Amino acid sequence: MKIKRSFPVVLLAVITALTFSCNQPPPATESPKAETVADPLPSWNEGATKQAIIDFVKNSTDSTGKGFIPVADRIACFDNDGTLWTEMPMPFQLFFVFDQIKVLAPQHPEWKDQQPFKGVLEGDLKSALSGGEKALAELLMATHSGMTTDTFDKTVKDWMATATHPKTGKHYYEMVYQPMLELLNYLRANGYKTFIVSGGGIDFIRVWSEAVYDIPPYQVVGSSTRVKYDTSGIQPVLIKLPELNFFDDKLGKPVGIHEHIGKRPVFTAGNSDGDYGMLQYTSTGSGPHFGLIIHHTDSLREYAYDRESRLAKLSKGLDDAAKYHWEVVDMQTDWNKVYPEVQPQKSSPKN
Amino acid sequence: MKIKRSFPVVLLAVITALTFSCNQPPPATESPKAETVADPLPSWNEGATKQAIIDFVKNSTDSTGKGFIPVADRIACFDNDGTLWTEMPMPFQLFFVFDQIKVLAPQHPEWKDQQPFKGVLEGDLKSALSGGEKALAELLMATHSGMTTDTFDKTVKDWMATATHPKTGKHYYEMVYQPMLELLNYLRANGYKTFIVSGGGIDFIRVWSEAVYDIPPYQVVGSSTRVKYDTSGIQPVLIKLPELNFFDDKLGKPVGIHEHIGKRPVFTAGNSDGDYGMLQYTSTGSGPHFGLIIHHTDSLREYAYDRESRLAKLSKGLDDAAKYHWEVVDMQTDWNKVYPEVQPQKSSPKN
Repeated sequence: MKIKRSFPVVLLAVITALTFSCNQPPPATESPKAETVADPLPSWNEGATKQAIIDFVKNSTDSTGKGFIPVADRIACFDNDGTLWTEMPMPFQLFFVFDQIKVLAPQHPEWKDQQPFKGVLEGDLKSALSGGEKALAELLMATHSGMTTDTFDKTVKDWMATATHPKTGKHYYEMVYQPMLELLNYLRANGYKTFIVSGGGIDFIRVWSEAVYDIPPYQVVGSSTRVKYDTSGIQPVLIKLPELNFFDDKLGKPVGIHEHIGKRPVFTAGNSDGDYGMLQYTSTGSGPHFGLIIHHTDSLREYAYDRESRLAKLSKGLDDAAKYHWEVVDMQTDWNKVYPEVQPQKSSPKN
Repeated sequence: MKIKRSFPVVLLAVITALTFSCNQPPPATESPKAETVADPLPSWNEGATKQAIIDFVKNSTDSTGKGFIPVADRIACFDNDGTLWTEMPMPFQLFFVFDQIKVLAPQHPEWKDQQPFKGVLEGDLKSALSGGEKALAELLMATHSGMTTDTFDKTVKDWMATATHPKTGKHYYEMVYQPMLELLNYLRANGYKTFIVSGGGIDFIRVWSEAVYDIPPYQVVGSSTRVKYDTSGIQPVLIKLPELNFFDDKLGKPVGIHEHIGKRPVFTAGNSDGDYGMLQYTSTGSGPHFGLIIHHTDSLREYAYDRESRLAKLSKGLDDAAKYHWEVVDMQTDWNKVYPEVQPQKSSPKN
């Protein structure tokens, strides 16, 4: 119980540390003097990409210029996996799925002999996933439906408090990108509303997005299962059903943006061709706009992958970056830091 | 063109007038002295209902008391038709539907002989709607699909700028309830996020919700048609399809709240049994909460209807108000004003 309760406190501490570790951008209303103003993006190396971001934001808040964007239209959308945090060796939500299959196995003795569950329980992911999308959908539904939304929230929260990444040993919430946290803060300080638009599960992300990214649940767009309002018990609850409601990827992203936000964004960041649709939707708006692609080029500090990746292919996005004036972040050269610095006590959720 | 362009300006002027016509509530962080602080709800008569609202809000912002609600949880949901603006003799979106059928008729010569269109074109709504829900769905789809979201937005905006109510002669956007505008402002001044949760069309409401209620499009939940991302033209667009995506009424309201907001609200206002689900969902949360029912009792200044209404029945809500501690607003005695005072030039969208 102690571990579970202390999770938000730990995250809060991490966030506080992150906030104070980066310099705060100046308020949007001031006229900053270049030589005295703190760098709003200290983890970004000086260069064309950083300058393009800063120029866009400055122009968008200058009501006398052509690049001005009214506050009501300052909608910024961010993919999550691979854009705000690491997505290798696989999207972190899949680690949650596999861990949960093991937790739930005692209630499902039949899983011992039944794929894809058998493979997961035996640590043989290759066999488990040999059934392709159908197998994955079965694993997702087994772990993302059949419970109340409150129970699901608590399960995700508990898992996030304790689970760690197989390669880095860090908690997953410590594997968010420091430069992107700074970018989120910088945009918000300049009147932007920041949204997550993810192919991942909306209910999974919402549990921790406010603590980790300062993005509240109602600014998260993602894939979802249907839910049903159930009044059969003492307290009315929402039950997650084993039925896909919305798949927020590829051409679904502009649709998800319309459903949840209702406006064409002016700033979008992504990292794979799954984000191509929302980048294109943003970059074909009639006013000023900005598209950012995170190119994973850093095999030492993170992972390097693009055109050949089976999990998160980036090919069309690179091909059309010039056409749409998308800025491509070279992680290796553009970022002087990848992950936030975590102080020793942060790694123990018991404190 | 002039009329169309000036619409937001006119609305902004109305809103500005509204804002200045009511006294601003004190900032949430000050310790107000009762005798010097302006009344945040001047259009509400003194009495139990007004006092209950003020007590709840004060308690929810007092971090030392039992009624405290953290800012992140201050989610307030409002039904639209009959809660924020008038819904009689029928929901205003239906006037839009009937007007649009007439506008579109030249492109559909077959409608002259085909119900429900024939009835609408001949001004015989009884015949038009004799086909019940199916007829209504046909009319809705004919006017709410088959175009881009941008075109639909512009059509609604133009209509709202000119259309007037058959009984009052006011523009529809002038028939919002002044006491509810004050309540929205009061809640926001105390750290609440205000959302619309309507059975009406999400795309219809979003066009004007920011100008009229200061509620941005991403804080509107409503019924929707499916949309499709279409890249066949020069500019990628979203096409509204003739297919229901989500019906945000009755038991759908808690579901819509979950999908869009992702949190159980702590404050909800409604006026019919279509809002029962979201009121119940709010009032069975584990922390402090508040439910408000607008009871239409004022046949002189507005309309009087409840248990016998076919359009907006309020029966179960009245029966269970005591059980759930819902405050019931008696429009006749609780409100000293119904609609905002509109200055002469406001009625002409040409200025």
